[in-house]
Amino acid sequence: MVSTYNFSAGPAMLPEAVMRQAQGEMLDWHGSGMSIMEMSHRGKEFMSVAAQAEADLRDLMAIPEQYKVMFLQGGASTQFAMVPLNLMGKTGKADYINTGMWSKKAIAEGKRYGAVQVAATSESDHFCCVPDFASWSLSQDAAYVHYTPNETIGGVEFHWVPETGDVPLVADMSSTILSRPIDVSRFGVIYAGAQKNIGPAGLTVVIVREDLIGLAADSVPAMMNYKTHVDAGSMYNTPPTYGWYLAGLVFAWVKAQGGLAAMGQISERKAGKLYAAIDRSDFYQNPVQKDCRSWMNVPFTLADSALDTDFLVGAKAENLLTLKGHRSVGGMRASLYNAMPEAGVDALINYMAEFERQKG
Amino acid sequence: MVSTYNFSAGPAMLPEAVMRQAQGEMLDWHGSGMSIMEMSHRGKEFMSVAAQAEADLRDLMAIPEQYKVMFLQGGASTQFAMVPLNLMGKTGKADYINTGMWSKKAIAEGKRYGAVQVAATSESDHFCCVPDFASWSLSQDAAYVHYTPNETIGGVEFHWVPETGDVPLVADMSSTILSRPIDVSRFGVIYAGAQKNIGPAGLTVVIVREDLIGLAADSVPAMMNYKTHVDAGSMYNTPPTYGWYLAGLVFAWVKAQGGLAAMGQISERKAGKLYAAIDRSDFYQNPVQKDCRSWMNVPFTLADSALDTDFLVGAKAENLLTLKGHRSVGGMRASLYNAMPEAGVDALINYMAEFERQKG
Repeated sequence: MVSTYNFSAGPAMLPEAVMRQAQGEMLDWHGSGMSIMEMSHRGKEFMSVAAQAEADLRDLMAIPEQYKVMFLQGGASTQFAMVPLNLMGKTGKADYINTGMWSKKAIAEGKRYGAVQVAATSESDHFCCVPDFASWSLSQDAAYVHYTPNETIGGVEFHWVPETGDVPLVADMSSTILSRPIDVSRFGVIYAGAQKNIGPAGLTVVIVREDLIGLAADSVPAMMNYKTHVDAGSMYNTPPTYGWYLAGLVFAWVKAQGGLAAMGQISERKAGKLYAAIDRSDFYQNPVQKDCRSWMNVPFTLADSALDTDFLVGAKAENLLTLKGHRSVGGMRASLYNAMPEAGVDALINYMAEFERQKG
Repeated sequence: MVSTYNFSAGPAMLPEAVMRQAQGEMLDWHGSGMSIMEMSHRGKEFMSVAAQAEADLRDLMAIPEQYKVMFLQGGASTQFAMVPLNLMGKTGKADYINTGMWSKKAIAEGKRYGAVQVAATSESDHFCCVPDFASWSLSQDAAYVHYTPNETIGGVEFHWVPETGDVPLVADMSSTILSRPIDVSRFGVIYAGAQKNIGPAGLTVVIVREDLIGLAADSVPAMMNYKTHVDAGSMYNTPPTYGWYLAGLVFAWVKAQGGLAAMGQISERKAGKLYAAIDRSDFYQNPVQKDCRSWMNVPFTLADSALDTDFLVGAKAENLLTLKGHRSVGGMRASLYNAMPEAGVDALINYMAEFERQKG
């Protein structure tokens, strides 16, 4: 096996220890004679795996009892509809914060279901920062406030949690969940596609405060109603069992690393090193304001974009994979999720310095 | 590794050759240094896997060019809403055929979106058959006719395809797809949760005739609109990449077995043997009318239900797993999907005979 560092923004690298365990027990889980993916989701084996995964996530994130955890399908894009379908009915209005591509997608979908107000935006700043909280024009009668704590494409992250008083705060944490401790009690809904910091694509974790469950209209599809899934323990229909199992292995791995406090320290250190390397000369650039730079997704450009292909080819030769930037931004992007070892970041920084020495 | 036969109704056994291949390349797909599940879905490696899977499915099922194939999330339960949300608008009415538990779920969901007429039902016959086509009261102005070719719980299967003229025929083929050749051109929509005959849970295959795409109202969530997924090649958001890959391995395996004609012969033979064993004495019973018995799911009861636990314990000791019947039916159920070797059916039949000899 080639030893590589994969900087993909998602689906993304998973911890090698998790992958090796999954490989080892792939055909025969704990002597059951079955793969996890061949088992009935209602059998005692899988039920125990599912329950342990939820317990470990609750433990890791210190999720209060009055929050329900769901293991669903459909990705964040499905939550863009499920959030308004479940929550907007109360007042017919919602506030959204626009910090980039993923915020915009959530806003566009939200508009199908009620009055969406963009209460703050950093679009005029080319999304190189998050809007200063003092500038937010929040409505008193919004059913919720939606924001994107980390923009995977722009590489912009909130390093603070907005205070929205009695209005439930809803967060798309797809690319930041598990990267640091958060205070779940500040939120009404937290959701995250798994394919960045949790597990494989096809699983979505949704954490909802219980008073926000049961508000959907009868016209809402059963599969889009939080109540359906909460009442059925995420087994209204067959859940994505293999993804749920892998997520459980990842949760256990994160706990073994020291939990979210440790992940936060490591994340800050990994990102800090890479930004320092980018800022060291004019050869590399990152456009994001320093206090809003993402710990998870680090986009950067070469001063001479004619060197982009050389950079990527050379990186691949060093087993530094998937560094090409998002097609809407260009340049490079290094995603530094929990599974990326610090040694991978060091290898990237060394390669960047060497490339600059040769071509700069 | 214990060698077992797993009769689970879904998630279900996968071909051992597929599982071994997946295990072998789990950490490093074709020398890429990445697992399939760690790769960007937009990278050339995964794009090639995705395209090959679709090509093999098209080849296997002889899917005509004017049909689009989607690899989605959410299971058949999501299709219960997507079908009416995409198709019912034309006339606001749809005909449904009620042959058991899964039909009923589709009907209940369909009623949220328009006038659902149950055009035929076998409920008064306790779902022990499918309704005779002569008794169907189909509407001329139905937007579609929905039926369930195989009822996983009742073990009832249509061995013929209804003729609905110009009204599109919609089929939930979750538990029968790939078990025999079908004429796709007879259908408007075919959908199937993967976790029975295709791959792991969390993937749903949807085949739609192209004139039925683009009919959804603006209020339909983007993720529930067939047009969204067709336009984006099932990559509007991150698809369930690992399930898609495994489905591709299964499609290749089915082709190597001789395709659907071969699977049909094997399925008929496996089921025929087991029904013959059940019918041989009064010790075992199956309530389904002979011409409607499922090739895929064989429910049976013991004349003395007090022996059920002994039967299951003894079966497990012989490595015959997951034979307990659905909680709504009781007794036993043996699911005989493509991955179940004929030797597994033989082993079950031998065990049943031995159990009867000892206890009968």
